[in-house]
Amino acid sequence: MMSGPEAITNLLKRIPDASIIDDPNRLRVYESDGLTAKKQLPALVAIPDTVAALQQIVRTCYQHAIPVVARGAGTGLSGGAMPHPRGVLVSLARFNRILEVDEENLLARIEPGVTNLAISDAVSHLDLFYAPDPSSQVACTIGGNVAENSGGVHCLKYGLTVHNVRGLKILTAEGDIVSVGGVEYDQQGFDLLALLHGSEGMLGIVIEVTVNLIANPASVAVLMAGFDTCAAAADAVGSLIGQGIIPAGLELMDRLAIQAAEDFVQAGYPLDVEALLLCELDGSDDDVLEQVNLVEQHLRKCGAVSVTVAIDASERARLWQGRKAAFPAVGRISPDYYCMDGTIPRKQLAEVLDRITVLSTEYGLRVANVFHAGDGNLHPLILYDANVSGELAAAEAFGAEILELCVAVGGTITGEHGVGVEKIDQMCIQFSDHELAVFHGVKRAFDIKGILNPGKAVPTLNRCAEFGAMHVHSIQASEVESGMERF
Amino acid sequence: MMSGPEAITNLLKRIPDASIIDDPNRLRVYESDGLTAKKQLPALVAIPDTVAALQQIVRTCYQHAIPVVARGAGTGLSGGAMPHPRGVLVSLARFNRILEVDEENLLARIEPGVTNLAISDAVSHLDLFYAPDPSSQVACTIGGNVAENSGGVHCLKYGLTVHNVRGLKILTAEGDIVSVGGVEYDQQGFDLLALLHGSEGMLGIVIEVTVNLIANPASVAVLMAGFDTCAAAADAVGSLIGQGIIPAGLELMDRLAIQAAEDFVQAGYPLDVEALLLCELDGSDDDVLEQVNLVEQHLRKCGAVSVTVAIDASERARLWQGRKAAFPAVGRISPDYYCMDGTIPRKQLAEVLDRITVLSTEYGLRVANVFHAGDGNLHPLILYDANVSGELAAAEAFGAEILELCVAVGGTITGEHGVGVEKIDQMCIQFSDHELAVFHGVKRAFDIKGILNPGKAVPTLNRCAEFGAMHVHSIQASEVESGMERF
Repeated sequence: MMSGPEAITNLLKRIPDASIIDDPNRLRVYESDGLTAKKQLPALVAIPDTVAALQQIVRTCYQHAIPVVARGAGTGLSGGAMPHPRGVLVSLARFNRILEVDEENLLARIEPGVTNLAISDAVSHLDLFYAPDPSSQVACTIGGNVAENSGGVHCLKYGLTVHNVRGLKILTAEGDIVSVGGVEYDQQGFDLLALLHGSEGMLGIVIEVTVNLIANPASVAVLMAGFDTCAAAADAVGSLIGQGIIPAGLELMDRLAIQAAEDFVQAGYPLDVEALLLCELDGSDDDVLEQVNLVEQHLRKCGAVSVTVAIDASERARLWQGRKAAFPAVGRISPDYYCMDGTIPRKQLAEVLDRITVLSTEYGLRVANVFHAGDGNLHPLILYDANVSGELAAAEAFGAEILELCVAVGGTITGEHGVGVEKIDQMCIQFSDHELAVFHGVKRAFDIKGILNPGKAVPTLNRCAEFGAMHVHSIQASEVESGMERF
Repeated sequence: MMSGPEAITNLLKRIPDASIIDDPNRLRVYESDGLTAKKQLPALVAIPDTVAALQQIVRTCYQHAIPVVARGAGTGLSGGAMPHPRGVLVSLARFNRILEVDEENLLARIEPGVTNLAISDAVSHLDLFYAPDPSSQVACTIGGNVAENSGGVHCLKYGLTVHNVRGLKILTAEGDIVSVGGVEYDQQGFDLLALLHGSEGMLGIVIEVTVNLIANPASVAVLMAGFDTCAAAADAVGSLIGQGIIPAGLELMDRLAIQAAEDFVQAGYPLDVEALLLCELDGSDDDVLEQVNLVEQHLRKCGAVSVTVAIDASERARLWQGRKAAFPAVGRISPDYYCMDGTIPRKQLAEVLDRITVLSTEYGLRVANVFHAGDGNLHPLILYDANVSGELAAAEAFGAEILELCVAVGGTITGEHGVGVEKIDQMCIQFSDHELAVFHGVKRAFDIKGILNPGKAVPTLNRCAEFGAMHVHSIQASEVESGMERF
């Protein structure tokens, strides 16, 4: 740190309405987010009580060019909230109030530290809900959801976080408050609302979020369809959506995932199939009945060997329980697993699953597939044993090859978990140097000193050159100033 | 122009596969877009046949710092495609092919010069459509729709252009091709897709668009509800949507608009009411029947004195015909009118309509209201006579006051028509200097020389200072470089 770490600590400790942690034992709590493989102690943790205190913290850091990493609940899976060794980790935990529920405009205005599920809980008496539902929704916060543009089972029909947020207030790197969006859909000037979603804390710190609320559907049904091959289940996904039917959720589980889940929670899954589709339909009573019939017929035409329909809430919950427990269930059958997250066009699902099976044999590592099939959002879980020499490295290489495969078929290296530190090298494959240059330009526009979450999400062209994935036409002088990875 | 206009003309004329127009008589065709009050001849018009030719044109202009204004069909209403006196107007008219229809992923990949309606026409045999439907949809192009983030009657349910586009290819100011988005919803790196929507040709030139296709609904119904007061109709809008019912379209017409439309096209509107709501509902047969009942009951509870339901296609067309003909109908009862476009929170509709009535009396100018009520997107038509001294100026002052009123109640200065040159001063009211500074930073990130559509959409802080709406804390030196309005 410029001015010496102690001088900065003293400056920050003088700010009213903020707790400062510098005891190394207490800092340990913050050393990683959900990507626990990457650990780093921050220089300091700051927990402001008020926006004014947060503003003073950020302004002090800006003045002294100290990195600032914002953290919600730390449930992210790509290391986006991993601390910086010379930086201040700012916890937004105390910004946990729901400021306004506006029933007429179907909006809620909330602070960034409110948990995802708390929003729906706060409006359930109005028969409304907030749609995006990451599996961490009990713990993850709306500020983090915005930073990572989080998804979930219901995002197939209702959209990702970016499609459900109408307005944001952010604090810029310089500590200024900037309002983006609002109650109306169109944005004047440049539309910064989506730009800020998924920007992983690199463009600003979210201090207020205005979200859309949606009426609870009158009726919900879940169909479970078994298939003799993974390819048939995968092809049914694109074909069903090609009919113009957009389910509320459409998930695929392969044989290994089905067996692990069934052993763990006895969801009532058939064990004699190679793949299952779980399809949730919602709407009015009549509409759901009509859709259930259409979907059942269509899935049978696509080769489903069994179809079960659950209307009753407890039956539905039982079918979803297996899906929701699938990750820990896989954890029971392998010492370790590596959860991948890539997205591909739906029509490529069968081809990519086949290729993953071939790679699985080549690497000698089992894979369980359980994922948001309707979105084309894969979550292959690569099973390995960290105590067997070479298996972790093999799992990582296998994972990287899956991501590169996703890009090759026209997809992307992440569906909903973000880039963070985990996938920063794969960004060199995803994007051309022209495209990365535009990203660097945008970063500089928001954060000329590069203090906000440096080293995450967007690789420098130098890094890509070293990674070997890209021919670098020219290293722009301006990149050096942009502060991405400069600290 | 640097290097002299003739030298540039000669350079551009040497580019293969592009027509160059420099004859002043032929340039006249391009002197304005739909905002015909603002006219300006360009130095040159270029009509490239291929992306390679467009790329050479843009690179030549970049090298010589010549302004480039891209133009689709020129139907825009805010002057976004108004030429620059020392610049090249680039017509994208020849990029008019539909490149791919992907039924499985419900996507179409199209060139920017394809008209909005041509997309739906090209997929109607698959029972699909492209949802955003500006009233100019026969003529306006998808590239222009992206540049202005166009709306339409059906955007209440299906979203604006930005919600229906999945991917873009753009040409940067430097002539590089950059791909943004694709088939998947989440964006890696920074999400530039929404940023480019509504950026009015200032960040890049759209060369390819990938749009979402939607299944045609099985059933459609239109309800027409009459009210004794405009306020009751306005309040019914927020109240209806507050029930969680999102109609496919929800339009309000006041007495003057009803009378003008009825005189013009005999849509069968009641003439004894102060306001009409037109509400379109779509979905499955059963769902539409159920919704029609719910909406009718609710509107009656809100004070509707008459409700007519049209299920039959020709009956529906007749009801919509009056709405669609409302603007020309108003043109029949007044020598001139000024169409405003602002958006406000739905719950403020009644209050703002009341205030407009008061202003109408104060200015001595009649106003007809016919607008996308469900979106809170006002279109007050201010009636005036340009031949009566002072009436145009009064209409403009009245219009500006309406826009400022929109901002004051938490809305914005445009709903769907863009800022262009028309509303650039009102941007100073809408945004703080911090916010404008971020816009300028983003502009610089994409276009350091400021060649793309300079002088539109985002005012300089100097301009705002002169407009008197804002206290300028500091004119940033960098703003001078940004090229907004520098030419």
